[in-house]
Amino acid sequence: MSRIIIINGPNLNLLGVREKGIYGDQRFETYFERLRAQVAGVELSYFQSNHEGAIIDKIHEVGFSDDGIVLNAGAYTHTSLAIADAIAAVTTPVVEVHISNVYAREPYRHHSYLAKNCKGVICGFGLDGYRLAVESLLTK
Amino acid sequence: MSRIIIINGPNLNLLGVREKGIYGDQRFETYFERLRAQVAGVELSYFQSNHEGAIIDKIHEVGFSDDGIVLNAGAYTHTSLAIADAIAAVTTPVVEVHISNVYAREPYRHHSYLAKNCKGVICGFGLDGYRLAVESLLTK
Amino acid sequence: MSRIIIINGPNLNLLGVREKGIYGDQRFETYFERLRAQVAGVELSYFQSNHEGAIIDKIHEVGFSDDGIVLNAGAYTHTSLAIADAIAAVTTPVVEVHISNVYAREPYRHHSYLAKNCKGVICGFGLDGYRLAVESLLTK
Amino acid sequence: MSRIIIINGPNLNLLGVREKGIYGDQRFETYFERLRAQVAGVELSYFQSNHEGAIIDKIHEVGFSDDGIVLNAGAYTHTSLAIADAIAAVTTPVVEVHISNVYAREPYRHHSYLAKNCKGVICGFGLDGYRLAVESLLTK
Amino acid sequence: MSRIIIINGPNLNLLGVREKGIYGDQRFETYFERLRAQVAGVELSYFQSNHEGAIIDKIHEVGFSDDGIVLNAGAYTHTSLAIADAIAAVTTPVVEVHISNVYAREPYRHHSYLAKNCKGVICGFGLDGYRLAVESLLTK
Amino acid sequence: MSRIIIINGPNLNLLGVREKGIYGDQRFETYFERLRAQVAGVELSYFQSNHEGAIIDKIHEVGFSDDGIVLNAGAYTHTSLAIADAIAAVTTPVVEVHISNVYAREPYRHHSYLAKNCKGVICGFGLDGYRLAVESLLTK
Amino acid sequence: MSRIIIINGPNLNLLGVREKGIYGDQRFETYFERLRAQVAGVELSYFQSNHEGAIIDKIHEVGFSDDGIVLNAGAYTHTSLAIADAIAAVTTPVVEVHISNVYAREPYRHHSYLAKNCKGVICGFGLDGYRLAVESLLTK
Amino acid sequence: MSRIIIINGPNLNLLGVREKGIYGDQRFETYFERLRAQVAGVELSYFQSNHEGAIIDKIHEVGFSDDGIVLNAGAYTHTSLAIADAIAAVTTPVVEVHISNVYAREPYRHHSYLAKNCKGVICGFGLDGYRLAVESLLTK
Amino acid sequence: MSRIIIINGPNLNLLGVREKGIYGDQRFETYFERLRAQVAGVELSYFQSNHEGAIIDKIHEVGFSDDGIVLNAGAYTHTSLAIADAIAAVTTPVVEVHISNVYAREPYRHHSYLAKNCKGVICGFGLDGYRLAVESLLTK
Amino acid sequence: MSRIIIINGPNLNLLGVREKGIYGDQRFETYFERLRAQVAGVELSYFQSNHEGAIIDKIHEVGFSDDGIVLNAGAYTHTSLAIADAIAAVTTPVVEVHISNVYAREPYRHHSYLAKNCKGVICGFGLDGYRLAVESLLTK
Amino acid sequence: MSRIIIINGPNLNLLGVREKGIYGDQRFETYFERLRAQVAGVELSYFQSNHEGAIIDKIHEVGFSDDGIVLNAGAYTHTSLAIADAIAAVTTPVVEVHISNVYAREPYRHHSYLAKNCKGVICGFGLDGYRLAVESLLTK
Amino acid sequence: MSRIIIINGPNLNLLGVREKGIYGDQRFETYFERLRAQVAGVELSYFQSNHEGAIIDKIHEVGFSDDGIVLNAGAYTHTSLAIADAIAAVTTPVVEVHISNVYAREPYRHHSYLAKNCKGVICGFGLDGYRLAVESLLTK
Repeated sequence: MSRIIIINGPNLNLLGVREKGIYGDQRFETYFERLRAQVAGVELSYFQSNHEGAIIDKIHEVGFSDDGIVLNAGAYTHTSLAIADAIAAVTTPVVEVHISNVYAREPYRHHSYLAKNCKGVICGFGLDGYRLAVESLLTK
Repeated sequence: MSRIIIINGPNLNLLGVREKGIYGDQRFETYFERLRAQVAGVELSYFQSNHEGAIIDKIHEVGFSDDGIVLNAGAYTHTSLAIADAIAAVTTPVVEVHISNVYAREPYRHHSYLAKNCKGVICGFGLDGYRLAVESLLTK
Repeated sequence: MSRIIIINGPNLNLLGVREKGIYGDQRFETYFERLRAQVAGVELSYFQSNHEGAIIDKIHEVGFSDDGIVLNAGAYTHTSLAIADAIAAVTTPVVEVHISNVYAREPYRHHSYLAKNCKGVICGFGLDGYRLAVESLLTK
Repeated sequence: MSRIIIINGPNLNLLGVREKGIYGDQRFETYFERLRAQVAGVELSYFQSNHEGAIIDKIHEVGFSDDGIVLNAGAYTHTSLAIADAIAAVTTPVVEVHISNVYAREPYRHHSYLAKNCKGVICGFGLDGYRLAVESLLTK
Repeated sequence: MSRIIIINGPNLNLLGVREKGIYGDQRFETYFERLRAQVAGVELSYFQSNHEGAIIDKIHEVGFSDDGIVLNAGAYTHTSLAIADAIAAVTTPVVEVHISNVYAREPYRHHSYLAKNCKGVICGFGLDGYRLAVESLLTK
Repeated sequence: MSRIIIINGPNLNLLGVREKGIYGDQRFETYFERLRAQVAGVELSYFQSNHEGAIIDKIHEVGFSDDGIVLNAGAYTHTSLAIADAIAAVTTPVVEVHISNVYAREPYRHHSYLAKNCKGVICGFGLDGYRLAVESLLTK
Repeated sequence: MSRIIIINGPNLNLLGVREKGIYGDQRFETYFERLRAQVAGVELSYFQSNHEGAIIDKIHEVGFSDDGIVLNAGAYTHTSLAIADAIAAVTTPVVEVHISNVYAREPYRHHSYLAKNCKGVICGFGLDGYRLAVESLLTK
Repeated sequence: MSRIIIINGPNLNLLGVREKGIYGDQRFETYFERLRAQVAGVELSYFQSNHEGAIIDKIHEVGFSDDGIVLNAGAYTHTSLAIADAIAAVTTPVVEVHISNVYAREPYRHHSYLAKNCKGVICGFGLDGYRLAVESLLTK
Repeated sequence: MSRIIIINGPNLNLLGVREKGIYGDQRFETYFERLRAQVAGVELSYFQSNHEGAIIDKIHEVGFSDDGIVLNAGAYTHTSLAIADAIAAVTTPVVEVHISNVYAREPYRHHSYLAKNCKGVICGFGLDGYRLAVESLLTK
Repeated sequence: MSRIIIINGPNLNLLGVREKGIYGDQRFETYFERLRAQVAGVELSYFQSNHEGAIIDKIHEVGFSDDGIVLNAGAYTHTSLAIADAIAAVTTPVVEVHISNVYAREPYRHHSYLAKNCKGVICGFGLDGYRLAVESLLTK
Repeated sequence: MSRIIIINGPNLNLLGVREKGIYGDQRFETYFERLRAQVAGVELSYFQSNHEGAIIDKIHEVGFSDDGIVLNAGAYTHTSLAIADAIAAVTTPVVEVHISNVYAREPYRHHSYLAKNCKGVICGFGLDGYRLAVESLLTK
Repeated sequence: MSRIIIINGPNLNLLGVREKGIYGDQRFETYFERLRAQVAGVELSYFQSNHEGAIIDKIHEVGFSDDGIVLNAGAYTHTSLAIADAIAAVTTPVVEVHISNVYAREPYRHHSYLAKNCKGVICGFGLDGYRLAVESLLTK
C-alpha cells in the first residue's frame, strides 16, 4: 500500500471561500474525502499551512519515507527557494499541482522555483489536478 | 462602532530601538496607546509578527469580520506574494502603510506586491501614517 | 494660519467628465469648495494646468513661502524629471496624491519620479486623498 | 463516445530513436496502440508533423468538432505564437503535454506561448503524461 | 569571554543526509562539538530553523548582547529582505557563511540580500567556513 | 457634414524645411489646402504646437464635439503619457499618423504611448497618410 | 492596370468564425468580393496560408512583378524573421495590415519584425484597413 | 561678429537659490554679465524657460540664423525626444552643457537624448562650462 | 567516398537576385556546380526550402546516414528552436554557415539557436564558406 | 607654473592614420606641439600606451604631484573599472576627453566607467577638446 | 608570397596543458610547425601574449603590411573593445578563430566584441580552425 | 612546508595611501611582514601588478607548483574573464579575497568573474582577510 501526502500552501485553507471565480466553491476537505474514497490502495494524508517553514518541516518529515508528495505551494511556488531546496534534499518524488492555469494569470505566477526539482507539474484542471497527481505517482 | 486592526510585520517590534535615523525613537506600543485615545468610536487592536505565515493567519482570522486592516508588512511588502494573495482572499479592506518614504530608499523597496490588492497606500509620514490610514478607513 | 495649495496636473480638469469608472463623477471644483469648508485654519488655494512648464512655474512661485503643496501631477508623475527637480529645489514640503490606486493599473503608472523628493505619498482613496494630504501637512 | 486527438510536433517522430536519455527508448506508435487499448469509450487518433503550418491546419480541422486535443508541440511550444492563436481560435479544449520536465532543462524551454490558451498543462511524466491528459479531458 | 552564536537556516538540519555531493556527509551537530572544543575562550551556541520568522526572532534576541553571529541563512540568503533588515537593526556584527561555493552554482545563488549588512562573507570552504567566521569575529 | 481636425505636434511646423530626406520638401500648409479640397463633405481644420500642454488643451477642446482627430504627435508619441491620457479621456475617435515609417528608424521611435488609446495607426505613407486617416474616420 | 495581391497569414482563414469580439463576424472571402468591386483599375488577387514557408514562397513568386502586396501576416508578424527577409529581398512594395489595434493587445503583439522592411503600416481599422492599404499602394 | 545664444531649461532660473551644494550660489544673470564681458566679438544672448515647448520654439527661432546655441536643457536632457528632434531639425550647431558632473549623480541623469544631435558635450565644470562651450563654438 | 549535403534555408533561393550588396550576384546553383567539381571524393548534394518543417524533415532523412550536413538556415538560424532540436536529434555532424558576417549586421542576427548543437560555425567568407565547411567535415 | 599631462589610451597612437573619417588626419604629436605653444605658463607633457596597466601606472606616478590630467582612455573608457579606481585613488583632478561625439556612435561607447570619478567630461570637439580640457584645469 | 600571422591571446600558451577536455592535448607550437609545412606559398608567423596591450601593439605592427591576421583572442574576445578598435584601425583583414565551439559553453562566451570588425569567424573545429582561417585568407 | 603566494591586482600598491576610509591606512608591505611572521610552516611570497597580463603570467608561473594562491584581483575581479580562465587552467587552488565588503559598495562590484573558478571567497574583513585565506588553504 502506497503512502502519499497532499501538502497545500498559503491561502489554500480558504478554498471554497476565497475568489470562487478562480478557485471554485468547494472546500478542500470535502474534495479530499471524495478523493480518498476514489483512490484505492493508497494511504492518503493531508497537510496545510500558511507558514513556509512549516511546509519545509513537513517535507523533511515525510520526504524519506512516504511514496509521494503532491504539493500545491500556492504563492510560495513563485518565491520560495527554501522549499525548492527542501524538495531537492528529500528522496520522495514530489508532483507540483496548481488548481488554476497559472500561465493564464499574472506574469509572476508563470515562474516556479520548485518545478525543476519536482518529478512533474500538473496545472489548470481545478481540484481534479490532485487526482491526476496521485495517479501519476502510482503509475511508474 | 468600527473594528480596525493594525498589523505590523518583521522588525517593527524594534521600533524606537532600531535605526532611529530612519524610523524615529518612539516604541510602537506607546504610539498605539496615544492613537487609540485619539480615534473615538473605533475598536482598535494591534498585532505584530516577524513570521510571514502568522501575518497570513491573522489576515484570514480578521479579514471577514473586521472593518479595516492597516498593514505595515515591513520587508514582506517587497517579497511576499503569499500575503498579497491573502489580502485578495479576504473581504475586509486593507490599507498599506510605511513609516519612511520607501521611494527615497533602496530600489527594491519601491515595489510592493501588496499595493495592488489594497484599498490604498500611505507612506512617508512617520507614525502619523497609521492615523491617516485609520481615518481613511472610517471615511468611505 | 497655514497656506496650502493643491496643484492638479494634466487631464484632471476633466474630473467628473472623464473615465468615471476610474475617477468618479464629481468635478474637482465642487469637491474643493467642500474641502475648503472642512479644513479650518488653512488658507487653501487651487491650481490646475495641462502644461508641465506651468506646474514647475507654480511650484517655484509658492515653494519658498507656502506651508505645503498637495500635488497630483497626473501622468507627469511618471515622466517628468523636471517637476521632480522643481520639488527638490523648493523648501515647501510636497505631498504626492493619486485619486486611483495606481498600483492596480498599468505598470508604467507604478513608478513615480516625484515620490523620492516628496514628504510622502497617498494614493487610492479617491478625492478623500486630498483631505488626508492636507491633514498630513498640518500635523508635522 | 468521445473523440480525442493527440497532436505531436517537431522531432517527436524520432521518439525512441533520438536522445533516449531524455525521451526514453519507446517509439510513440507503440505507446499509442497501448494507450488506445487502455482508454475505453474514446475514439483516439494521432497526428504528427514537423511543420508549424500543418499543426495549425490540423487544429482548425478538428477544433470545432473533436472533444479534446492533447498537444505536445515540441519546440514550437516556445516559439509559435501562431499555434497559440490557433488554440484560442477553436472551441475544442486543448491540453499541453511535455514528456520531459521542461523546467529542469534550458531556460528557453520554461516559457510556453501555448499554455495560457490551453485548459491545462501536464509535464515531466514521460509518455504517461499523454494518458493523464486524455483522462483530464474525459473528467470535465 | 566572547559569546558567539551560529544560526543555520532552512534545510541545514539535513546536513550529512542531504545532497552529500554538495554539502558533505557530516551532521552539523558532530562538527559543532568539534568546533566548540577548538575555539577556546568562546561561549559558542547553535540555533537552526526552517522558519524565516524564527531566524529573525533569534537575531533580535541575541543581536544586542552577543559578540558575534555566524549566519548561514541557506536559501533565505537569496530571498529574505526581512532577515537583511533584522541584521541591519541589531548591533552585534554578523558574518555570512556558505558551505559550498555559491558562485559556482545556479545564478540565483550568486546574489545575497544579507551580505551588504554583514561584516563580511566567507564561502566555499565546507564546514571549515564556520571556524574561519568565528575567528574573524574574534580578531577585530 | 463631418468635423475633423488634424493636430500636428513638435517640429512639424518645420515640414518642408527640416530633414527633407526623411520628411519631404512640402510645407504642411500647402498640403493641407490640397487635402481640404480633396475631401468633400468634411469641415477640416488644422492645429500645430510644440507644447505638450497645448496639444492636450486642444484635444480637450474638440474631443467631445468633433467627429475625428488625426494626430501626429511627433516625438511626444514616444514620451507623453499625458497626451495618451487625454486621448482616453475624450470621446472623439483619434487616428495616429506618422509621415515616415517609424519602425525603420531609431528603436525609441518604435513605441507609442498613444496607439493603444487610438482607433488605429497609419504610418510610412508620407503626407498621404493624413488623407488615409481622414478617410478611415469617414468610413466608420 | 495595377496588380495587387492580399496575403493573409495564419488563422485568418477563420475570420468570421474565430474570436468575433476581436475580429468581427465577416468571412474574408465575402469582404474580398466587395473590395474587388470597389477598387477599379486594379487586378486584385488573394492568398491565405497557415504555413510560414508558403507565405515566403508566394512573396517570392509575385514580388518582382506585382505592383503591391498587402500583407497581414497574423502571428508571424511578431516571430518571423524569415518573412521579414523575404520582404527585403523582393522589389514590390509591401504594406503591413492588422485588423485589430495590436497596440491595445498583448505586449508581444506590439513588435513587428516585418514593419521596418515595409512601405508602411495600417492597423486598427477592421477589414477597412485592407482597402486603405490598397489605396495607399495606388497613390504612390 | 558671431551671434551665440545660451538657452537654459527647467529650474535653472533658481540657480544660486536652489541646492547650492550641487549648483553653487551664484545667480545665472550675474555670471552671464561677467561672461558677456569676457568674450569679445560675440553677440551673446540668454533665454530661460521651464516649458519644453518654449525651448523648442526658441531653437526654431534662432536655429537657422545664429552661429551657435549653448544648451543646458536641465532635466529635459534626459526625457525630451522633442528637443532632440528640434536640434536635429535646425542648422545652427548646438553644444550641450551641464553645470554638475551628471555621471556622478543618479543613473537617469547619465543618459542624454540630445547629445547625439549636438556638436559636443561639456559637463562638470560649474558655470565655467558655459564659457568653454562658447569658446568651442568660436574655434570651429 | 563521403556523402555530404548542403541545406539552404529561407530566401537563399534568391541568391544572386536579392540584395546583391550583401550576398553577391552569383546564383547558388552556379556556385554549387563549381564546388562539386572542386571537392574530389565527396558525393555532394543540395537542398533548399523556405519551409522550417521541410528543413527538419530533410535533416531527419539524411541525419543518420550522411557524413556531414552543411547548413545555412538563413533567418531560421535566429528563431528556430525546432531545427536546433533536429540537429541534436540526429547523429550526422552539422556545420553552420553564413555567407555574410552576421555579427556586422542587426543584433537579432548575432544569436544562433543552432550553433550550440553544431560541430562548428563558419561565417563571413561569402560563398567560399561552403567550401571551408565541406573541408572541415572531411578533416575530422 | 602648472604641470599638466595628457594621457592617451589604446589606438590613439594611430591618430591621423586610422579611420580618418572619425578622427581626422592629424597625428597627435603635431597637434601636441601646437597646443604646447598655445598654452602659456603650463608645463605640458604627453604619454600614450595601449596597455591598461601602463595607464594605471602613469596615473599613480603623476597623480599626487601634477596639477591636472587630461585623459582620453579610448576604448578603456568603456571597459576599465581598474582605471576608474586609479582616478579615484589619486588626488590630481582628471578631465575625460573624447575626440569624437561618442553619443553619436555605438551604444557601448555611451557609457564611461571613468566619468563619475573625473572632474568633468568634454567630448565631440575633435582635437580642440584637449585645449578646452587644459583650460578647464587652469581655471579652477 | 603571402605573409600571414597567427596571434593567440591569454592562456593559449597553456594549450596541451590546460583543460584538455576542452582544448585537446597538443601544444600549439607542435601544431604550428605542422601547419607551416602544410600551407605552401605562405610566410606564416606566430605571436602569443597574455597582455591585451601587447596584442594591440602587435596588430598595429603588422596590420598595415601583412596579408592576413588569424586571431584567437581567447577571453579578450568577450571583453576587449580596445582590440576591436585596433582591428578596425588597421587595413589587414583579420579572421577570428576559436578552438572550441564557444556557443556550446557559458553565455558570456557567445558574444564577441571583435567579430563585427573581422572578415569572418571560424569556431568549433579544434586546431584545424587555424588552417581553415589561413585558407580563407588565401582565397580572397 | 607549504608554498603560498599572495597576488594583489590594480591599485592595491596604493594601500595605506588611497581612500583610507575604505581600505585603511596600512601599507600592504608592512602587513605582509607581520603576516609572514604569524603563519609558521608556510613559505609566503607576494606579487603586485596593475597589469592584467602580468597577473595571468604569474598565475601560470606558480599555478602548477605552489600550494595555494591568495588572489585579490581588485577591479579586474569584475571585468577579467581572462584571469578567470587562468584560474581554471592551473591546478593550484585559488582563494579570492577582498579587503572591503564589496556587497556594500557599487553594484558592479557585486559580481566576480573569478569566484566560480576559485576554492572560495573571503571578503569584508580588512587585511585580516588575507590571514583567513592563508589559513583556509592550510586546512584542507
